[in-house]
Amino acid sequence: MKNNLKHAELKDLFLLKIKALYDIETHLVKALPKMAAHSADKDLKSGFKNHLKETQGQVRRLRNIFFLLGISPQKTQVEAIRGLVKDAEWLIKNIKDTRALDAGLIAAAQYVEHYEIAGYGTALEWAKLLGLEGAARLLKETLREEKAADEKLNRLAKHKVNKQAIRPEE
Amino acid sequence: MKNNLKHAELKDLFLLKIKALYDIETHLVKALPKMAAHSADKDLKSGFKNHLKETQGQVRRLRNIFFLLGISPQKTQVEAIRGLVKDAEWLIKNIKDTRALDAGLIAAAQYVEHYEIAGYGTALEWAKLLGLEGAARLLKETLREEKAADEKLNRLAKHKVNKQAIRPEE
Repeated sequence: MKNNLKHAELKDLFLLKIKALYDIETHLVKALPKMAAHSADKDLKSGFKNHLKETQGQVRRLRNIFFLLGISPQKTQVEAIRGLVKDAEWLIKNIKDTRALDAGLIAAAQYVEHYEIAGYGTALEWAKLLGLEGAARLLKETLREEKAADEKLNRLAKHKVNKQAIRPEE
Repeated sequence: MKNNLKHAELKDLFLLKIKALYDIETHLVKALPKMAAHSADKDLKSGFKNHLKETQGQVRRLRNIFFLLGISPQKTQVEAIRGLVKDAEWLIKNIKDTRALDAGLIAAAQYVEHYEIAGYGTALEWAKLLGLEGAARLLKETLREEKAADEKLNRLAKHKVNKQAIRPEE
């Protein structure tokens, strides 16, 4: 792949994107249990646990795309997702008040969701342009899940977690 | 600030967010000229140049928020934006075909826009909850700009740059 990038076409970029998304999702599978473990609010904790299961399904969907493309699953190392997870770990290390940390963790998770919405949005557009219908269908499903996850976090932040964080614990 | 995080409240988190956004925007002011310089399509190039001016205005808005909060502008180092810029630099270094690179650069820019939409969305929610009306007004203005920038990139990708990237240059 890397050798071909000199004469790259959209299909090479698409494959690069899928390898990047595969790196991103497998990185998140490792990060989400830590975010669940450090959430105090029970809805937030179960939200992270549910999203872990969803993310594992998204990893499987990417493997199916590799299968459809006729290649074995490979990763391209993405710096942004490592930075996003590091920023969340900084919060866990530095914010001792559990209610404030919950609000910070929701914000960190929404960063990740929006990041993924952009990534899957691009991948879906490229798949459609390239006529890769099977891949497009799988990407669309994940994109829908990521948008729903962001909306869920939004509601939880607005109606509960942010309000709890206005005053710290005694 | 860091010393207070043990008993952090939402207002401490809000201040941390503003310091993080200030770091993000000033980092982008340095990165955008490089993205403009490596864009081949003239609309994409001028898009990056216009967004640089917009970003400089967003930096000024954040300085105004610090002023409203009665503190001098400060930064909190954010790893995610460094990762996002590194991933874009990887594309510049590795994709030699200019049409494919343009498509890659739009995708990289949309990652950044969505990342910022999440960041300003959270900051705006927190400002409203804390009753910081002046800050909320400024954040809302930037959030509107970031959403418009993402939409503009979307249209440019869909109607022009992605189509050009299907076939590489001769």
